Amino acid sequence: MGAQTLHFWHECIDCGHHFTPDKFLYTCPDCKGLLLVVRDEDAVKKIVGTGGHARDYIDNLRYGAARKRYPNDSGVWLWRQFVLPGFPEDAILSLKEGQTDLFEVPEWLAKELGLQKLFIKMEGQSPSESFKDRGMPVAISDALRLQRDYPGLGILGVSCASTGDTSAAAAIYSAYRRDRLSCIVLVPHKKIADAQLFQAMAYGATVRAIDHPDGFDGCMKLIQEFAAQHPEYVLVNSKNDMRIVGQETIGLEIVQDLGWQPPDWISIPVGNAGNLTALLNGLLRAKDLQLIDRLPGIIAG
Amino acid sequence: MGAQTLHFWHECIDCGHHFTPDKFLYTCPDCKGLLLVVRDEDAVKKIVGTGGHARDYIDNLRYGAARKRYPNDSGVWLWRQFVLPGFPEDAILSLKEGQTDLFEVPEWLAKELGLQKLFIKMEGQSPSESFKDRGMPVAISDALRLQRDYPGLGILGVSCASTGDTSAAAAIYSAYRRDRLSCIVLVPHKKIADAQLFQAMAYGATVRAIDHPDGFDGCMKLIQEFAAQHPEYVLVNSKNDMRIVGQETIGLEIVQDLGWQPPDWISIPVGNAGNLTALLNGLLRAKDLQLIDRLPGIIAG
Repeated sequence: MGAQTLHFWHECIDCGHHFTPDKFLYTCPDCKGLLLVVRDEDAVKKIVGTGGHARDYIDNLRYGAARKRYPNDSGVWLWRQFVLPGFPEDAILSLKEGQTDLFEVPEWLAKELGLQKLFIKMEGQSPSESFKDRGMPVAISDALRLQRDYPGLGILGVSCASTGDTSAAAAIYSAYRRDRLSCIVLVPHKKIADAQLFQAMAYGATVRAIDHPDGFDGCMKLIQEFAAQHPEYVLVNSKNDMRIVGQETIGLEIVQDLGWQPPDWISIPVGNAGNLTALLNGLLRAKDLQLIDRLPGIIAG
Repeated sequence: MGAQTLHFWHECIDCGHHFTPDKFLYTCPDCKGLLLVVRDEDAVKKIVGTGGHARDYIDNLRYGAARKRYPNDSGVWLWRQFVLPGFPEDAILSLKEGQTDLFEVPEWLAKELGLQKLFIKMEGQSPSESFKDRGMPVAISDALRLQRDYPGLGILGVSCASTGDTSAAAAIYSAYRRDRLSCIVLVPHKKIADAQLFQAMAYGATVRAIDHPDGFDGCMKLIQEFAAQHPEYVLVNSKNDMRIVGQETIGLEIVQDLGWQPPDWISIPVGNAGNLTALLNGLLRAKDLQLIDRLPGIIAG
């Protein structure tokens, strides 16, 4: 299965250059800019359809007879032809991430807050207990795809710097294919919660605590240097654009949860804006496919 | 809606006496024995059907068009006609408990353990993060039913003694109807995890820490005395047979998750044997209805 069947590529948001997905790129090789995955939208429309057809297509994967087929019980991979059209099914690694509850707070509480209805998306229900389980399976599956289809790359594992959630997710997903991937994690010395440190260690990652004066930022700098020197370890920190792809599914899942009626507003923490980028990108493309007929407002704080 | 439409009653496992569900009973009023809910099995078969019909009935509630109707997105109330036939729908309180992931451990780990396949039922994915969210909504809904249909009982709230999970579940469910129910919790002083204590407090329960020489057992004794003197506070500790009813759904959900093919074995912690009783009872009745054609073995440790 070669790159010719893949209907997506990497695009630099600064210089606009395109790169076929036949090797691992953390940033743009030309200008070091951020990369984002871009799709052949015509191919997506041909596979998924638009409007009612697209809604039926996705509803069938989640609720219909197709729900029983791996990996449709994943709230991420359910959307594979939408977020990563043509990605080879046999390279997919899924741990039933996503399809988390959209929890409605009680009427009296919504009223106290001056709202008609308020829902909370329970992203902690995923395998490593954070929303990072949406992006990580895509990044790890893509590493597995590159390793298999491009053996010349010599991919041996994944690497990341982390204060907790990222390393937990990287460790759990690579543990499932420990026959093919090892996982290297740098954490800032004494600046990570025990529970999160234990997650990475319990799943067999090689964890190194670094007593760097710049804390996490220092670890991040070191792991980027490491990954540049050792391209056989795919860097799965948040600039990895495959993670953004997976995170696009949270907004898509919310509108599906609500029967394709978008909420008036979606509120999301900003962080480094990766999740916000993913949310917006997913919703804009959902509107383009007429899965939804209007965009919700976004509150990002 | 009176008791005549309810196709279930309380039965004492010691003296065998029956009690219609028109008041709250924590133990047998005649001999203080444990009560269990017993159903009119013919009524259940009339509503749910048997064999393929019963499977289709339940699958439609979970996956079919009916999934969108409250409270079918609950892994507990989905089974309402099976576990509590005739229970009035408008008394049901659901927070989307259950329908948790049945997580498959990686092949290499199953192999290391000498197993073909190993699944873990992720009960922590429920609202208060424990399996207590299966029994508690049934106990709380039944308190709401009794309060509404038998105003002479003067029901004001619920009460429990707890080292954590029970009070978290009691607090979260009663918080949703704080217009009708208050929640009183006794915890052993300094013998409860902060996170669990905060759950009960955050959901507005009245929490009292008791420095009793017998710890939790002392708290349990005190709350039983309190509930005996104040029957307007329904005691929702584990002897409350409505909680067992809700917990029956975990085994039912597992066999539904597996396409009605029971696993060879189900392993479950014993604790005070309430959950084990519920699991067995649910599976035995599932076999009686021909939802499954054989019983799995049980490992209870």
